This record gives sequence, structure tokens and C-alpha cells, in this order.
Amino acid sequence: MADKVTITDVARAAGVSRQTVSNTLNSPEVVRDETRRHVLEVIARLGYRANQAARQMRTGRSRLIAIRIDPGGDGINGSVLDRFLHGLTESAARAGYRILLYTAHDDRSEIATFEDLIASYEPDAFVLTATHHDDLRTSWLLERRVPFVAFGRPWSDLPRTQHPWVDVDGAAGTAAATRHLLAAGHRRVGFVGWPPGSGVGDDRRAGWERTLAEHGLRPDDLHRAGEDGIATGESAARDLLGAGATALVCASDSLALGALNVAGPGVAVTGFDDTPVAGAIGLTSVHQPLGEAAAACVALLTRALDSAEPPATHMLLQPSLTIRRSA
Amino acid sequence: MADKVTITDVARAAGVSRQTVSNTLNSPEVVRDETRRHVLEVIARLGYRANQAARQMRTGRSRLIAIRIDPGGDGINGSVLDRFLHGLTESAARAGYRILLYTAHDDRSEIATFEDLIASYEPDAFVLTATHHDDLRTSWLLERRVPFVAFGRPWSDLPRTQHPWVDVDGAAGTAAATRHLLAAGHRRVGFVGWPPGSGVGDDRRAGWERTLAEHGLRPDDLHRAGEDGIATGESAARDLLGAGATALVCASDSLALGALNVAGPGVAVTGFDDTPVAGAIGLTSVHQPLGEAAAACVALLTRALDSAEPPATHMLLQPSLTIRRSA
Repeated sequence: MADKVTITDVARAAGVSRQTVSNTLNSPEVVRDETRRHVLEVIARLGYRANQAARQMRTGRSRLIAIRIDPGGDGINGSVLDRFLHGLTESAARAGYRILLYTAHDDRSEIATFEDLIASYEPDAFVLTATHHDDLRTSWLLERRVPFVAFGRPWSDLPRTQHPWVDVDGAAGTAAATRHLLAAGHRRVGFVGWPPGSGVGDDRRAGWERTLAEHGLRPDDLHRAGEDGIATGESAARDLLGAGATALVCASDSLALGALNVAGPGVAVTGFDDTPVAGAIGLTSVHQPLGEAAAACVALLTRALDSAEPPATHMLLQPSLTIRRSA
Repeated sequence: MADKVTITDVARAAGVSRQTVSNTLNSPEVVRDETRRHVLEVIARLGYRANQAARQMRTGRSRLIAIRIDPGGDGINGSVLDRFLHGLTESAARAGYRILLYTAHDDRSEIATFEDLIASYEPDAFVLTATHHDDLRTSWLLERRVPFVAFGRPWSDLPRTQHPWVDVDGAAGTAAATRHLLAAGHRRVGFVGWPPGSGVGDDRRAGWERTLAEHGLRPDDLHRAGEDGIATGESAARDLLGAGATALVCASDSLALGALNVAGPGVAVTGFDDTPVAGAIGLTSVHQPLGEAAAACVALLTRALDSAEPPATHMLLQPSLTIRRSA
């Protein structure tokens, strides 16, 4: 039944041109919202099946953007990427794209999944998250000229202009937290972070260290590192308080939560990511503009997809400090 | 270049039959993992593009399952559906499907999006979440014979056997929480929930009420309701403690968090959903088996897709109580 309805039938019933019907399906962004809604209603009423498959063969576009989704972890920090995903889905829909999800456990399995997805769904582009030193994924995609944007800057020696990326300035975030603690009169401000070598972690520690230096203070031995989590936060905080720290800048809300568990009255603690847990327990935390980051990713991607040899651009967004009762 | 590589080239290079190459792409679940990996590697190396579009025209399957993703809300309860989504993506991948995300703001806009998706991506099936009374979406999909499974039971008068669904027994969860409080010696156990009329909320209240009755206790006036959130939890708890309650069963972790803010020592509070916030603050909470629910949804869907006239089945999963220091 549906096969007998043609694009001409749809155009006639909707009172629009065939081109408008075609645009509604192939380039929704060029059709006014109201017209698009009307055409889609007629399409549904008549049972017309434009057939993504046939259309994709014609346009060479799947209008899919693929992104990895990770297992939950401790459920605290994972909420950051979940919030980014919500924003990405909204922004992509406004640009006429849908989000395709996949899972992977490391760079190699993610590359295997790239192969799988490209062979079977042909997404127009990928959004990479959790970029890190010696990221095998970016070079793989660059070599094959697969369009992508990274949420997270390139941390390796790759020229940073080689592919589009969007990131939040983590050092600016810990710098703001450190300034806030110094302004409250603290002079022994410690830092709880992750072991050296992770781009994101080193960047967050640099913001703390730089701000101390700007105020004529030295980091001394006031920093501790360990695997992200509440337990590390507790032991690191115990150590640093023993060494005379009166305030702690933490690289994550999980670490901050642990620090708060052992911090006595008068000890100030800040977290990073402004997760729901931070709001629930009154933790001052660095807030990342995730909706804005998602919109920026979609903007850079559509620009890359719509021009033959796009300039690789990047955007470094500024975080803000959400102040609550912990500091 | 890629266009010149044929399925025969791939089969030869991989040392497998053309059927195996075809199965790897069209029915990955019937190919051994190792073989599938090998074939995909050869496909990637040769630059073969099976072309999902051409394949979809041949098989009539897109191997996409579509699901809505919602804005974050207070970020506490939203984490439940995020965790479900992680599980769904993993389970779907194992069955050879990928997840397609969309957004919508109410039943009508979701139905408009169904039209849009069906016209342009032809997902093989939908997973509905947040089912409710008089759900317009289920009847729309049923009328058009679009395969779907609901995560959430049908709350209306529709015969429950009409479409597959998976749900968690909310009443069993609040019953377990209530029994736990009664066993600890409490006799004035209150309930903080949502206004009557929501299927999920009424079900959770019923578990509390039923358990009191089983212990020869009456609910008296010990229940309060309001919009989900910390503020409601605080005011409802203040009220109920004033009326002599010594323990509170709450319909969500957000409500429980508010209740804890005003509960003095000795007052026991339980939440619902075992969100990361519950873990962070030591809140006893009802835990939903979300990974299992996601796997069950995929199992019911693949069964529906693989048989012409599938029996509509459902699964009601049992929650458990995660006991922490709040009760």
C-alpha cells in the first residue's frame, strides 16, 4: 500500500512543491518549521515512505552522528557525559541529525566499532569523548578522513588545528576555585587530583598551581593524587589536613565528597563538575557549560559536513564556579 | 575507490564464504565473534562499503531501535533513565542493534517525532519510557503496527497483553522499605509521594499502605504528596513529623533528600531509585534492576521482530532495598 504513494502525491496533498517535500526529508534545516510539520503530517497520513535507505543512496548522507556511551562508573562523574548527551541530542535534532549510540571499552575496541558502524550505518560523523594522550582514535579517523569533532582537546603532540574540537577550560575552573578560597583568607590551599599523565587531570592541577604562584604562594607538598573516587578523596584529605591545609581544591565531585567526609568545621572544599550530588550536599563546585559545549560540537560538525575542505576550528569554553556552603 | 571492492573480494581476502560476509553485516548474531571481527577487519582494510542503505533496501531492516531522551530535570531522578539507556545500548549491541536517540516534550510531540523518524530512518522498533494513564503513544504505535516495547507497564484500561512491556514492581519496593522500618520498631511510618493519578506514584503508595495493613496498622493521615523535588520532601516531612511519624518512606530520592534535611536524629528515611546521590549521602533506597530491565526490553523486541505475529509478553521485575545509614 505505502509503496504506491509517490512524492508527487505528497506534494499535491500538502499543497507544496516536490522540492519542498524532498527538502523536508533531505535538508530539513532549510524548510520552515511550520511547513516541515505540515509536510510530515501529510507523509504520515498518506503512508508515504520516503525510505531513508533510498534517500541515503541518493544524498550520500545518513544524517546520523555517532557517539560512545560508557558504563556508569560510580554514577557521580558519569552524569557529566550524560548531560552532554542530552544537549547533543537536542542540538543535533535542531540541525536535522539524530544520535546513534555505541559502546566500547578502550581505544582499540572503539576503533573496531568505528569499522563496524561505518560498514553498516555510515554515520555522517562521530563525536569523540574522553580524549587523552596518544589517542589512537583521532589518528585513525583523520587518516580515513572520517568527519568528527572531539569533546575534549587533543592532548598529544598532534597539531591542535588538525581536527575540530570543543573543550572546557579546566585550569580556569580550578583557578577560579583556588581564587575563591584565597579570597576567603585561606593560605594553605591543597589539591586532590589524579596521578600525573592524564591531560584533563594535569590541566586541573595546573590551574591550582598557577593561581597559588600568582598570589606569591608555593604549592609546597600540598597535593595528593589517586584513582578517582570517594576513598581517594578521604585518604588524600586526611593527609593534606595533617600537613596543615585548611582548604582543598578537588579535581572531581567524587574526590570532594570523600574530602568532605573527613574535613572538620572550618575546612573548605571545592569539587569539579557540579554534579547532582554537589547540589544535594551543598558542595561548591566548578560548573561546565555542557549544553553550550554540545551545541558547539554540532555547529562545528555541520560546518565540517557542509563544506568540502573545512577549516578545523576549536572552541575552549569557560566554566563557572557554583558557590554553596562547603566553601 | 571503495565502490570497486565487492563482497567477493572481501570473502576471498578473509577466507570465508560470501554468505559469511553477508551474515556479518546483516545478521551479526549468527556469526562467531572471532569470525565477525576478522571479516570486519578485512572490510575496513579493503575499504568495502556494504552500504547500510543498499542493505536496508534488501533486508527491510534498519537495525535501529529508537528511544527518547529527556532533559535532565533536577539531575537526581533523571539518572535512572540514563542508567537504563546505558544498559539498553549494551544489550542492543549484543543483539546486533544500535540505539537512535530523539527528544520530545509530550505525547503529541513524541508522536510527531515517531512520524518523522519512521519517514526518515525507519527504526525497526521503539522503546517507550515514562508510560502513563491514557498514553497516546501506545495506541498510535499499536494502530500502525509499529513494533515497540514499553519500559513501564500500561497504566490505562488497555488490555495489558496488547503490547510487550517490562517494568519494575514499585509497590514491592515501597513494601520492602516499609517492612524494613516496621522491623526496626517504627509504628508511625509515613509516606511522601506525588499527587494521586500517576500510575507509578499510586503504585508506590499502594505498597506502603498494603504493608501497613498487613501489620494491622492504618495509614491514618500519614501521607503527603506534591511535585517531585527536595522542597516538597522538606515540607511534607515537616508536616508528617509534626503528626507523629518517626519514619518516612519516600517515592523518590529527591523527596527523601528533602525529608533528610528536616529529619532529626532517630528519624528513619528511605528513598526510591538508589541514585548516586543516595550512595553519596548514605540514604537507604529501593534499587531497580535497570540493566536487567534493559536486557529484557531487547529480548522482547528481538522476539517481536523475528516472528510474524509475536505473542505480546511482559516482565515485572523485582526491586531490592539497598540499606545504608539513613534507615
